[in-house]
Amino acid sequence: MNETLSSSGETVKQTLTKRYQRVREMTLWLCKPLLIEDYGLQAEAAVSPPKWHLAHTTWFFETFVLKKYDTKYSVYHPEFEFLFNSYYQGVGPQYLRPNRGLLSRPTLEQVEEYRQIVDESMLRLLENCDASEISALVELGINHEQQHQELLLTDIKYSFSFNPLFPVYADFPLASKYESVPSLRWQAFEQSLFRQGFSGQGFHFDNETPAHEVVVQPFQMANRLITNQEFLLFIEDGGYSNPLLWLSDGWQVVQQYNWSAPLYWRCIDGQWFEYTLHGLSALIDELPVTHVSYYEADAFARWAGKMLPTEAQWEFAQFTVKNRQHHLLLHTAEPVFHPQAANLSDSLSQLLGSCWEWTHSAYLPYPGYRPLPGAVGEYNGKFMCNQMVLKGGSCVTPRDHIRTSYRNFFYPKDRWQFSGIRLVE
Amino acid sequence: MNETLSSSGETVKQTLTKRYQRVREMTLWLCKPLLIEDYGLQAEAAVSPPKWHLAHTTWFFETFVLKKYDTKYSVYHPEFEFLFNSYYQGVGPQYLRPNRGLLSRPTLEQVEEYRQIVDESMLRLLENCDASEISALVELGINHEQQHQELLLTDIKYSFSFNPLFPVYADFPLASKYESVPSLRWQAFEQSLFRQGFSGQGFHFDNETPAHEVVVQPFQMANRLITNQEFLLFIEDGGYSNPLLWLSDGWQVVQQYNWSAPLYWRCIDGQWFEYTLHGLSALIDELPVTHVSYYEADAFARWAGKMLPTEAQWEFAQFTVKNRQHHLLLHTAEPVFHPQAANLSDSLSQLLGSCWEWTHSAYLPYPGYRPLPGAVGEYNGKFMCNQMVLKGGSCVTPRDHIRTSYRNFFYPKDRWQFSGIRLVE
Amino acid sequence: MNETLSSSGETVKQTLTKRYQRVREMTLWLCKPLLIEDYGLQAEAAVSPPKWHLAHTTWFFETFVLKKYDTKYSVYHPEFEFLFNSYYQGVGPQYLRPNRGLLSRPTLEQVEEYRQIVDESMLRLLENCDASEISALVELGINHEQQHQELLLTDIKYSFSFNPLFPVYADFPLASKYESVPSLRWQAFEQSLFRQGFSGQGFHFDNETPAHEVVVQPFQMANRLITNQEFLLFIEDGGYSNPLLWLSDGWQVVQQYNWSAPLYWRCIDGQWFEYTLHGLSALIDELPVTHVSYYEADAFARWAGKMLPTEAQWEFAQFTVKNRQHHLLLHTAEPVFHPQAANLSDSLSQLLGSCWEWTHSAYLPYPGYRPLPGAVGEYNGKFMCNQMVLKGGSCVTPRDHIRTSYRNFFYPKDRWQFSGIRLVE
Amino acid sequence: MNETLSSSGETVKQTLTKRYQRVREMTLWLCKPLLIEDYGLQAEAAVSPPKWHLAHTTWFFETFVLKKYDTKYSVYHPEFEFLFNSYYQGVGPQYLRPNRGLLSRPTLEQVEEYRQIVDESMLRLLENCDASEISALVELGINHEQQHQELLLTDIKYSFSFNPLFPVYADFPLASKYESVPSLRWQAFEQSLFRQGFSGQGFHFDNETPAHEVVVQPFQMANRLITNQEFLLFIEDGGYSNPLLWLSDGWQVVQQYNWSAPLYWRCIDGQWFEYTLHGLSALIDELPVTHVSYYEADAFARWAGKMLPTEAQWEFAQFTVKNRQHHLLLHTAEPVFHPQAANLSDSLSQLLGSCWEWTHSAYLPYPGYRPLPGAVGEYNGKFMCNQMVLKGGSCVTPRDHIRTSYRNFFYPKDRWQFSGIRLVE
Repeated sequence: MNETLSSSGETVKQTLTKRYQRVREMTLWLCKPLLIEDYGLQAEAAVSPPKWHLAHTTWFFETFVLKKYDTKYSVYHPEFEFLFNSYYQGVGPQYLRPNRGLLSRPTLEQVEEYRQIVDESMLRLLENCDASEISALVELGINHEQQHQELLLTDIKYSFSFNPLFPVYADFPLASKYESVPSLRWQAFEQSLFRQGFSGQGFHFDNETPAHEVVVQPFQMANRLITNQEFLLFIEDGGYSNPLLWLSDGWQVVQQYNWSAPLYWRCIDGQWFEYTLHGLSALIDELPVTHVSYYEADAFARWAGKMLPTEAQWEFAQFTVKNRQHHLLLHTAEPVFHPQAANLSDSLSQLLGSCWEWTHSAYLPYPGYRPLPGAVGEYNGKFMCNQMVLKGGSCVTPRDHIRTSYRNFFYPKDRWQFSGIRLVE
Repeated sequence: MNETLSSSGETVKQTLTKRYQRVREMTLWLCKPLLIEDYGLQAEAAVSPPKWHLAHTTWFFETFVLKKYDTKYSVYHPEFEFLFNSYYQGVGPQYLRPNRGLLSRPTLEQVEEYRQIVDESMLRLLENCDASEISALVELGINHEQQHQELLLTDIKYSFSFNPLFPVYADFPLASKYESVPSLRWQAFEQSLFRQGFSGQGFHFDNETPAHEVVVQPFQMANRLITNQEFLLFIEDGGYSNPLLWLSDGWQVVQQYNWSAPLYWRCIDGQWFEYTLHGLSALIDELPVTHVSYYEADAFARWAGKMLPTEAQWEFAQFTVKNRQHHLLLHTAEPVFHPQAANLSDSLSQLLGSCWEWTHSAYLPYPGYRPLPGAVGEYNGKFMCNQMVLKGGSCVTPRDHIRTSYRNFFYPKDRWQFSGIRLVE
Repeated sequence: MNETLSSSGETVKQTLTKRYQRVREMTLWLCKPLLIEDYGLQAEAAVSPPKWHLAHTTWFFETFVLKKYDTKYSVYHPEFEFLFNSYYQGVGPQYLRPNRGLLSRPTLEQVEEYRQIVDESMLRLLENCDASEISALVELGINHEQQHQELLLTDIKYSFSFNPLFPVYADFPLASKYESVPSLRWQAFEQSLFRQGFSGQGFHFDNETPAHEVVVQPFQMANRLITNQEFLLFIEDGGYSNPLLWLSDGWQVVQQYNWSAPLYWRCIDGQWFEYTLHGLSALIDELPVTHVSYYEADAFARWAGKMLPTEAQWEFAQFTVKNRQHHLLLHTAEPVFHPQAANLSDSLSQLLGSCWEWTHSAYLPYPGYRPLPGAVGEYNGKFMCNQMVLKGGSCVTPRDHIRTSYRNFFYPKDRWQFSGIRLVE
Repeated sequence: MNETLSSSGETVKQTLTKRYQRVREMTLWLCKPLLIEDYGLQAEAAVSPPKWHLAHTTWFFETFVLKKYDTKYSVYHPEFEFLFNSYYQGVGPQYLRPNRGLLSRPTLEQVEEYRQIVDESMLRLLENCDASEISALVELGINHEQQHQELLLTDIKYSFSFNPLFPVYADFPLASKYESVPSLRWQAFEQSLFRQGFSGQGFHFDNETPAHEVVVQPFQMANRLITNQEFLLFIEDGGYSNPLLWLSDGWQVVQQYNWSAPLYWRCIDGQWFEYTLHGLSALIDELPVTHVSYYEADAFARWAGKMLPTEAQWEFAQFTVKNRQHHLLLHTAEPVFHPQAANLSDSLSQLLGSCWEWTHSAYLPYPGYRPLPGAVGEYNGKFMCNQMVLKGGSCVTPRDHIRTSYRNFFYPKDRWQFSGIRLVE
């Protein structure tokens, strides 16, 4: 590859290297509030312990880059290929997912050393290699690590929530006063033939392509997310005990798990609280309701006489309004790890960086979709069944990781992500 | 309603009445091979006993037509509303689905009497009422009963299959000699804007509407279903033990249930057999593979380097070729309750009445979809999650029940329907 | 064997033959109230369908007697060895217990024919054989069938209880008026060295031997069983919600299954009813509480400040008072299939033929216990773990089947037998 | 209480105080090989994390002694009553047992501080109080802590065993050479009337009383435990695949969990290894087989044509031979955390301090048993169901904690204790 210069005068390799370092450091920075005891927590199979995230993201670079392209690299530990493989059958068998919390060894110190050694090797490789060979994989690894930064936070929140001491991740309380949020308004969009998916330059996942034309029917989209106050009305109206509001599968889940509120809401002596990464907080009316499943989002929409958007509608709206304002505050001096209230001035607010927004669309391949070649082909493609698409990123999605065509996907009953509700009609 | 005449000179009411009688009789005719002991079989929660089907289809007319429109009708038994309600929360609570097989009482005789009394009331009502008021509901009930005719057969097949005596439903063996099937060929379709869904006159379910435009990307469709012989190659190539061929959820199911062949295949002393409604039969190479899950269909397609069609592709193809030939043989003198081999002469054969064909499309509402008003609104809408669409009807779908826009839906792991594999590329 | 004469002048063979016939007929007589639909009911794995009982008891004679001692006997059906083997690993594999209800074939008619043919062969064999060779096995088979007579009734009661129509087995209601029962009194027994277990002549199971000396500590035994009225006081005092009254394992079961009353009690509009083989009946104060688990019996005893008897205490008491009065009414003109109220005149009443009485003794082998040789050795021995001993027989135990040394055994959570509570202090 | 002098010239209070200090220190000493990451491990609900053991044993003194008898004591943390209550319903509700591993907070440091503060309060109280009031409870707490010392080791061994890195607790390997063990010999005991249970002075649990007479039938007891080599013969003879050797419940467990060897045996490339607290070790023939369930012990006995001893037989034998030699090596300079080979010179060897020996006796109350008054009455009594008695202590039972009348109890399927096999005939 030529030493292509980017607009800032850096070579591509320099840019990539800086980005690699920044993202790898960010992961460690996010771990700072944790104590050694926290690094092993895994409250259920779907979440992973912080230490495992640290090791697995490192494993990704070791497995897909160093082992393949760095002839001098010698494997850090022969068992790590097995221990920190998440789900790549093409690489080999994997340690049982529900048992990740049982790996007290390797210790945190060893995992940190593992990170350091892999980082040193990666930086050496980046300096000496032909970037064209590995830059796509390195970029994939960086984006992969950014996904795990978000998971690291949502997973630790989930595991902490089982502790009656309500551990605090971010050591200052949420603001308790908020300006009142704008009332719900509806922005109209006409029928159109829209080019959905990723087109253009820059990194994107395989599942965002190929871009392709779809017909979008006319619709109106709400100007903001549903608030805690609005969701409380649903609860008080008996929403969780009226089967007519729910999808059949959703109603089964409600009964099986005795759901009666969003995941982190707690009713204590008749008053509602919400467990947040900033500790237990009285429920704040103005903030968007979050940590709801698709079933709850869908039931709320039915109760309100509205619908959830399709993926194409959401993408079309976001594309149209060019609303690229982003609430993500991770890089500010005092980042807030919770979605913030809607801004009074926005036409369509909270589209990016507030809550992942459940869409009415199943996670399926776009026409002509092809997974990446090799074992990384398992990254996205094999999950295209039984899950729903979410759009827009959340308050804990890294700022430079999100884009309009990004397709996140979770099972309809999942609630541990910062997932919220946007309505259409 | 005016005594509108149909083309045959019959009034609408006469046509409807005849159809009512014919379909109701057909249900009883399908039960003829059963012994009293068979009527209570329920091998798992997803299937229902024949007696329950007999009662529930009757309950449908009693609940949605007679109770509402026949002021003179007195309820046959006060507990039947509870016992034979399938899932209509708007009507009231339901007897636990997995326990339907425990209802030895009411006896078969009582259920037959229940049918007769409801039929007499229905016929009286049809004669005396204003047809415009009830004809839509009666037509819905007739189509509902036709769906249960199919379920009655697939359910009894499933329950029979647990009996090592291999009970025979249809008392003659499958033909053992078949002409060789045509080789796989691919028919090309160009990109087009296609109007998907039901438009026109006549009965249809709410989920087939509204018709709406979709973009169909160019594709090629296989001329026939995959055969047992072809599926055997997948098995012999280690298809069931190679995780790289499977969706992640599918691979979990394969391991959980130890799947190694389609539902009714049995390997006895190294030779393959298939349990059919005609008894246990040596596996016949030429017949379409059937009783496969979406996961198996998808894995087979990946193994073959092809894909499953989307719902729109299937519908577009079927619409284009005007192939309305139907293999359904239920009305012939000696009906065969198993899909037949592809016809050499067809361009696209087996599209209707052979096997339900798994599509690559999730079962979701069409844009602008509205469920029917009232409790019958629960008929289709609340199942629009976690299921995949199947098209085309099977060998046990009543001939006048199937159409191009028909949307059947099952969970990706379901195998007890006559479901088969059509490929596209 | 000599043609030994019994006291009545019959030969041993004649006696055995008559007994065989009488017991076999009794089984059919007990089935008379059943409809064909009832014969396949199996509400859970622990209970078996009536038809299966009919076939299995026949299988027992076929397998252990005819196949071995009747050289001319040809097996009725080759698959029956598999289908109707309960748990004899020494005979071969068994059809899955939870699936017994799925065997609609063989039909009832075929099973009745099976019984008849085996009976004919048995009678022929009994006439022609040397009785000393087979009489022990025939006697075992007869007692085995008597055990299944009791199970047939308790199993059908259990399966019927899932039907909201409350099917009636015995077509007349329980008496609604009862004399008041005697008040609880305590009969004292001194410490003694007691010979526990079966000694003497006549049939007995292997688990009743060898008789052996045990030390019985001094105790006092209640003169009758605990009544419904007394148990109601326990319920009203919060017995089912106070963990301090329960064994740790028992409390887990109470919470897991939400127990709040004995198995067949139903609270309808604030009034207590009990489902019986005579139909749903208002709860009758004077009758003994029945269908309680060991956990409930133990919790009641703790609540009352008393204990359950040990097996040795019970046997010693029964032996001492020579109370052989038996409430079993099966052979009367109008048998009652429910335990009756205590008799005012008895010193220790209801010891035999009312309810199986939970003892405080685990079901373990007696010192020196040896199972029968051959596959029938699995009859009792392999169950000697995790179960508790019950004594005395119930209202549905055949009269000539019960004796002081008889050891019945069930898991502490089992409730579907007619099990009741006798206290000691 | 008078300042009664013990034989060594110490007052009772001095003795108790010293003992308190020694045992509390021992717990911390046992934790020394652990890393912070290890303190939270809980591989299944039945085991607890080391940190939880540290806190719970402290909670015991705080709850039952300080809160009641130290008027100046102020509770360390209000939530600890809930978090570290194991199962005392009389004290209040308990944090869910399977979630103990999720308590990353309080941290290890806090728990150590908790221990220290409670210790200081306890020592102050012991100095100033009337010992007669609290010495029984303090002694109970000390014995309670000793039980948890053993659990701490068996639990961490269990949790470590899920880690493919085979963490090492004791940092030196097991000796690989052993003298050959004595051959199996049988020591005879005659029938006798034996006084079972605890009599005499000194601490004992409520469940060891009252002492009472039992008849012990004549028997012969093996001179030593079964070795790995002998158990291997059972495996090689197909012991784990022959249902005729197993109790019915045991056979179900074998199939459910696919058992094919004792808990910590691993077959790697055709060679047997055993995971021990000293790391993974080639299987050593001469050592006693350990970590077997009751089912396995019973199946082995049946295979060998022998039996397991009853509790009375075991106690009688141990009492008779006055064999008080103890293999426990915890207090030596280099303790070994694994049972050692039998000593050639003993008549009955390994009775104490090698492996807990499964008896054929269910864990039930002795005649006249009364639990302790108050909440500590839940200590033993409520577990008297479904468990079997084990005798003799293991290699990790503190030396001054074991005695002849000691009754340990586990479920028949439990394997994570150092449980072994002693035969009788």
